[in-house]
Amino acid sequence: MNNSIHPTAIISEKAILGKNITIGANTIIYDNVEIGDDSFIGAFCELGVNNHLSEGQKLVLGKNSHIRSHSIFYEGSEFGDGLITGHRVTVREKVLAGKNLQIGTLCDLQGHCEIGDYVRFHSNVHIGQHSKIGNFVWIFPYVVLTNDPYPPSEIQMGVTVEDFVSICTMSVILPGAIISEGCLIGAHSCVKGITEKDSIYVGSPAKNLGSTSRIKLEDGSTAYPWRHHFKRGYPEEVTKDW
Amino acid sequence: MNNSIHPTAIISEKAILGKNITIGANTIIYDNVEIGDDSFIGAFCELGVNNHLSEGQKLVLGKNSHIRSHSIFYEGSEFGDGLITGHRVTVREKVLAGKNLQIGTLCDLQGHCEIGDYVRFHSNVHIGQHSKIGNFVWIFPYVVLTNDPYPPSEIQMGVTVEDFVSICTMSVILPGAIISEGCLIGAHSCVKGITEKDSIYVGSPAKNLGSTSRIKLEDGSTAYPWRHHFKRGYPEEVTKDW
Amino acid sequence: MNNSIHPTAIISEKAILGKNITIGANTIIYDNVEIGDDSFIGAFCELGVNNHLSEGQKLVLGKNSHIRSHSIFYEGSEFGDGLITGHRVTVREKVLAGKNLQIGTLCDLQGHCEIGDYVRFHSNVHIGQHSKIGNFVWIFPYVVLTNDPYPPSEIQMGVTVEDFVSICTMSVILPGAIISEGCLIGAHSCVKGITEKDSIYVGSPAKNLGSTSRIKLEDGSTAYPWRHHFKRGYPEEVTKDW
Repeated sequence: MNNSIHPTAIISEKAILGKNITIGANTIIYDNVEIGDDSFIGAFCELGVNNHLSEGQKLVLGKNSHIRSHSIFYEGSEFGDGLITGHRVTVREKVLAGKNLQIGTLCDLQGHCEIGDYVRFHSNVHIGQHSKIGNFVWIFPYVVLTNDPYPPSEIQMGVTVEDFVSICTMSVILPGAIISEGCLIGAHSCVKGITEKDSIYVGSPAKNLGSTSRIKLEDGSTAYPWRHHFKRGYPEEVTKDW
Repeated sequence: MNNSIHPTAIISEKAILGKNITIGANTIIYDNVEIGDDSFIGAFCELGVNNHLSEGQKLVLGKNSHIRSHSIFYEGSEFGDGLITGHRVTVREKVLAGKNLQIGTLCDLQGHCEIGDYVRFHSNVHIGQHSKIGNFVWIFPYVVLTNDPYPPSEIQMGVTVEDFVSICTMSVILPGAIISEGCLIGAHSCVKGITEKDSIYVGSPAKNLGSTSRIKLEDGSTAYPWRHHFKRGYPEEVTKDW
Repeated sequence: MNNSIHPTAIISEKAILGKNITIGANTIIYDNVEIGDDSFIGAFCELGVNNHLSEGQKLVLGKNSHIRSHSIFYEGSEFGDGLITGHRVTVREKVLAGKNLQIGTLCDLQGHCEIGDYVRFHSNVHIGQHSKIGNFVWIFPYVVLTNDPYPPSEIQMGVTVEDFVSICTMSVILPGAIISEGCLIGAHSCVKGITEKDSIYVGSPAKNLGSTSRIKLEDGSTAYPWRHHFKRGYPEEVTKDW
């Protein structure tokens, strides 16, 4: 199968590995794991951590996955092709994610959430349970999506983040908030409720500062929707429609 | 002793292990460690890291401890029975904690602090030195308890958090603050001074928004004190008095 | 060479190790690494992670480096003597740092930045690419130096932090900001633009609250510049001029 597995790695015989897979030193892969072809798993990782909340479901990583070292994935989550992670990500059970997801160093996905295609989490993002994240979303460092409206309580109201949203550094999104398509949430903000589409929200509590079209790049063109000028890392099949 | 120790684990002969202990792959247990019966230590952990500030004291984990993978504990701290941690917690010397503490993934306990019984830290909580935390306290993600009033200085004024307090996501508690019994600190707040008991504080700087009894659940009952409706994970011996 | 290398460590034959080096269990040292004399590398570390952005440059650690466990350094960065880190630090390529740097537990240096001498990052500090940090700077927990003015965009405007600045817990420094010499940034602040020298900035957005000389210690002496009263850990050759 042309696989390259470090001799110190500990791989369950029950794990299903595709072709052309690299697995780093000391990494542990438990029983309930399926990894697609052409994937790389760094050193010191744990894939398929057992948990009763997984209900026996596998961890499924698609083709061309690239998991950097010291990362931990529970069983019971499923990712489309092209997943890329930084180091030390922690991903619990029941994450259902599309293709080409990027999860930055130190991110903490608490599980029980849905994530679309081409989503990018920068470093140290915390995704609470019951979050629903659309496609082409960007979330920057130290952002937290919360879910408990009366902490601590038994009520869980996840955050919804629609397509093309950008949430900037160190913002908190309060339980049940809906960040509507194309919104920009400024750094260090705290957002509750439902935002208006394509609008800028800044502050704590965050206020609507108007349309994102107000923000201009230095050449005078509009900075948002960001897809009109930012295409790095997206395949041409995606950006041709932008 | 019916212990299950992975062959790759490195366990000092001086460490004292109780009965029915599981220790995961690659984990290192140094000399100065004592672990109670029926405990689980995940993979890639380090327990009993040596440090001159420990003054030679042991790391003591009580019975039924559950330490998840990639966690680091220094020698010189002591925990009651039933400690549960997430992954990658870092716990330095001179933590004196009661029973049934929960420490979430990525938490950073800087040591030299006191923690009561049944306290719960969610993910990525930072507990500065000289903090004093009561019983049944909840601290949510990305909260920092600070301690230096003139950073950087040689003065350390720890934070005090009294019983039944709930501190929400991404709040900073300033040096020497006292969060009084039953208070609710809203998300993304910055608190200084002494708060009034059973009160809501929100904002930066945080202001008193009145009694927590103002906050109602959807059925019209009061959401605080939270112990009247939230009992998950506490044993009946505790909740019968609530 | 009087080195103490744990038998489970995996050390490339191409790595260049000085004298009197200790390397902990399970640690991996790749090809492109040079470590100065009298250094300590803890367990579960990875040094010299390969990355095409490193352009083949070495990771160079000076003499008397002390890297705590679970830390990750890419190739292509260079540190002066006396580097000390906490646990789980992540340091990418093209960091050029002076002597006696301290990097706290969970810090995330994104690479492509410059750092002077005697700089101290407390826990969980995030240094964005293109940051320029002077000498004797202090950065406290959960501070983020950002760099993208129109997130996401191709434009990167790093933050500049001048000598003797102190940035307190959970502050965000916006892209292109210049924190001038001797400034104190209060906890939970969000700073943009150019600050006035030796001034206090607090809030979100942060406002100038006047000269740092207004802040007095309990004995009535001025708390800033902090170097007049705080000298812990600096060698006498440094503090004699303070």
